[in-house]
Amino acid sequence: MASDGIVERTLGELARLVGGELQGDSELRVSGVAGLEEAQINQLSFVVGPKYLPQAHASAAGALIVPPKLRDIDKPLIITDNPYLAFAKILSFFTPKPRPPLGVSKKAHIGAEVKLGDSVSIQPNVYVGDSTVLGDRVSLHGGVYIGSEVYIGHDTTLYPNVTILDRCIIGDRVTIHSGTVVGSDGFGFAQDGNSYFKIPQVGIVQIDDDVEIGANCTIDRATMGKTWIQRGVKIDNLVQIAHNVVVGEDGIIVAQVGISGSTKVGKNVILAGQVGVTGHLEIGDNVRVGAQSGIAKSIPPGQTVSGSPAISHRDWLKNCQILSRLPELRKKILNLEKRLAAIEEATDS
Amino acid sequence: MASDGIVERTLGELARLVGGELQGDSELRVSGVAGLEEAQINQLSFVVGPKYLPQAHASAAGALIVPPKLRDIDKPLIITDNPYLAFAKILSFFTPKPRPPLGVSKKAHIGAEVKLGDSVSIQPNVYVGDSTVLGDRVSLHGGVYIGSEVYIGHDTTLYPNVTILDRCIIGDRVTIHSGTVVGSDGFGFAQDGNSYFKIPQVGIVQIDDDVEIGANCTIDRATMGKTWIQRGVKIDNLVQIAHNVVVGEDGIIVAQVGISGSTKVGKNVILAGQVGVTGHLEIGDNVRVGAQSGIAKSIPPGQTVSGSPAISHRDWLKNCQILSRLPELRKKILNLEKRLAAIEEATDS
Amino acid sequence: MASDGIVERTLGELARLVGGELQGDSELRVSGVAGLEEAQINQLSFVVGPKYLPQAHASAAGALIVPPKLRDIDKPLIITDNPYLAFAKILSFFTPKPRPPLGVSKKAHIGAEVKLGDSVSIQPNVYVGDSTVLGDRVSLHGGVYIGSEVYIGHDTTLYPNVTILDRCIIGDRVTIHSGTVVGSDGFGFAQDGNSYFKIPQVGIVQIDDDVEIGANCTIDRATMGKTWIQRGVKIDNLVQIAHNVVVGEDGIIVAQVGISGSTKVGKNVILAGQVGVTGHLEIGDNVRVGAQSGIAKSIPPGQTVSGSPAISHRDWLKNCQILSRLPELRKKILNLEKRLAAIEEATDS
Repeated sequence: MASDGIVERTLGELARLVGGELQGDSELRVSGVAGLEEAQINQLSFVVGPKYLPQAHASAAGALIVPPKLRDIDKPLIITDNPYLAFAKILSFFTPKPRPPLGVSKKAHIGAEVKLGDSVSIQPNVYVGDSTVLGDRVSLHGGVYIGSEVYIGHDTTLYPNVTILDRCIIGDRVTIHSGTVVGSDGFGFAQDGNSYFKIPQVGIVQIDDDVEIGANCTIDRATMGKTWIQRGVKIDNLVQIAHNVVVGEDGIIVAQVGISGSTKVGKNVILAGQVGVTGHLEIGDNVRVGAQSGIAKSIPPGQTVSGSPAISHRDWLKNCQILSRLPELRKKILNLEKRLAAIEEATDS
Repeated sequence: MASDGIVERTLGELARLVGGELQGDSELRVSGVAGLEEAQINQLSFVVGPKYLPQAHASAAGALIVPPKLRDIDKPLIITDNPYLAFAKILSFFTPKPRPPLGVSKKAHIGAEVKLGDSVSIQPNVYVGDSTVLGDRVSLHGGVYIGSEVYIGHDTTLYPNVTILDRCIIGDRVTIHSGTVVGSDGFGFAQDGNSYFKIPQVGIVQIDDDVEIGANCTIDRATMGKTWIQRGVKIDNLVQIAHNVVVGEDGIIVAQVGISGSTKVGKNVILAGQVGVTGHLEIGDNVRVGAQSGIAKSIPPGQTVSGSPAISHRDWLKNCQILSRLPELRKKILNLEKRLAAIEEATDS
Repeated sequence: MASDGIVERTLGELARLVGGELQGDSELRVSGVAGLEEAQINQLSFVVGPKYLPQAHASAAGALIVPPKLRDIDKPLIITDNPYLAFAKILSFFTPKPRPPLGVSKKAHIGAEVKLGDSVSIQPNVYVGDSTVLGDRVSLHGGVYIGSEVYIGHDTTLYPNVTILDRCIIGDRVTIHSGTVVGSDGFGFAQDGNSYFKIPQVGIVQIDDDVEIGANCTIDRATMGKTWIQRGVKIDNLVQIAHNVVVGEDGIIVAQVGISGSTKVGKNVILAGQVGVTGHLEIGDNVRVGAQSGIAKSIPPGQTVSGSPAISHRDWLKNCQILSRLPELRKKILNLEKRLAAIEEATDS
């Protein structure tokens, strides 16, 4: 650590951290990372491709992370196939997220027969229900509510005012941001004349390891069985996941998406912002869906679709162009009608 | 109760519970309900129609709930016109939602001149403002905030981290899921040059009996008068109800719908997911609106509409088909133009 | 004050309050404002234009606020160019929002080295993190969570269950409604094979003076630098603002809008309900965007656009008309083809 309290590392250490090739002074001291324009002489920056070469040359950064084809830049370099990933890892290394103080606040409520792991942090105004299990190094920020018989794995962080309801299961290294609700009742009612009778929602939500969920999302418990968010899924803010939905591994669900009941989303799917998906569908692996699309049919693996109702992204792009010229097309048709009528009249006579 | 702690009922009791006709052994012991594929020999399942006959015959269920036309199935039966409703009622009977422990937690704040009904449950970290009235058997889970002069009827449940602001009125048997806000200010501002001056929102929200509201919804108070959710309405998650909106009895509002200020929604209306409705409209009784539709005009009773802007659902389906063939139509037009020009040239000459 | 506890003011006082011209009895006593139909003899109402003259003549209101061209109405009048604004100001004067009791609840958690301004109100179940600064007359309702090193200006009100995370900056006279989250992590991940590596979000959110934010919104902190909501912006409920977004002064963002990362929105922009804006765009000053539109390209200042993808509002209106007649257009084309084929055949022979 430097004398002013800023952490410093050598370029060599950082190259090793990200598995990159070092070119230049391995003892160069680096105190952080920043964008090309903001970086200072004691900071590291990154260049993802040749497009950014002018900014790279103009940058004050003391060293750069670059892909192999940019190894000729005249600065100390860390060379790696994925400079953005290396940047993320080094930024993460320099700026660890602070944990709340260890221990259990006296202003928290801890129910009966709760099992607490080692080194947990439980802030004031937290509620932990009976028979709940918390893994090691779990952090519960102020206002978090955890119901009864909940299981939470190691190294999981729940930000302020998160609600986890009874019997849900949360894995290791899961992060859930403020205001999100996990385990609210699914929206299920049986018609009874003009009115509706509630179908009890007796299933759970299971969230696997390494999932991150944004703020103010809602993930409903299953009617029976489980709503299931699989390993590595990343969910943005204000997303709605209905009962019995499955989101496959490493999916990306952008803000304000809604997925209706019992739909199964495959692995490595990307749903862009404000997409809506109706219920009981199968979305195949590696599907990508454009922003604001409406999905009303199952989609085979690997497709990219857009629009509402969604069609192939390529066709949708064509349609968008034609749509912007619809008035013109209509004029063409009216014009054709006139000309044709004239010919018909001439031929008749 | 069976020796292992599982509740058991006779088929005869369950038939009486749902007002169904019993066929077979009335003393058959049943310990729960499940889907056709999951049900065990000691469980009851249900068949809504002939389509599911193969699964019904293959099911291990000890008995079935069926409609009258399936009375020939060779199992003990409960025969009823609405098997799904009977299933919901029996599931509900076997799985009552647990209430929090009776009484008022010492970690709750109860304001001055609060009137508490009999058998209320108030968990830790709850806030109840001055002069608020809670009916009998009201359950307030952890983190619930209730303002001053609020009225809450009997048997109403507020899940964790629900917020009810000053002077709102909530009926009997209302359920509100976590994170929902009732009584936030309506979005009303008067233009003042380039800036905006806030119009005080001095009205309230009134929620009538038997309403259920999902998680992380927002229901704004009226500018003056009331925003009104009428008896039996069911609202899914992340729904926005603006100031002075009225939602008529037994309406179904699916997730992520937004209804703008002063719009009146009739009885038995269904708004599917992500629908947006502009302000000051009248949506007639029994109207149904397809997912992601945008409603910018009032809709007469009984119509089914889709699209943005919405048109009749039938026309919308036609349009969707044509839209997917727009590039083809455009080619036809260009082709017609060419052929017509050729004829015109020939005729001219 | 009148003997029954209702505040009364003279019409002269109210005219001075709004800078309007008085016509009639300046000593007339007024005890409130209301709409034309609801107003009583002791109340003031308002007329925005000639369209409402019949209601104005029928109103029981003791006096009216009118624009100059309606100065002939035979009642005591306050004459002003903007009657709606004058109404808002007088309503605001008669119905000040009650503040929670002054002081710090013993059931609140106040961290180390917190600086509290004069006359703050801190209710039970509030959490204030270490080294946070609160200005004078700040109101924190029950269940509010404020992280460490947060700065909150004078006269700012946070409604119940609001979450403000570490290091965010909130200005003077800011109002944030219940359930809103400020400073959750931006949605940023670097691809790492099939999985994703989290990019630390080390920036902040800065909210300037006179901003109002609705309920259950999410405003993410910047990856580096700041997400910035500028002076006077008004945001409705359930709005998503991503990392590094800038919303310019006096913007209006209606419910359920989503703005993606790094987009810069100019001054006096209006985004109607459920609009989605993709990332890294520039939305010019005074742009207006229609409800449910999808913005995928930057928009020059002053334009009004609609649709998804958005086009000029004028073209969009034309398109909507044609879209509703697409089946008819298609029939025209098929009919043209037939007639043309007939002519071609005749000419050939």
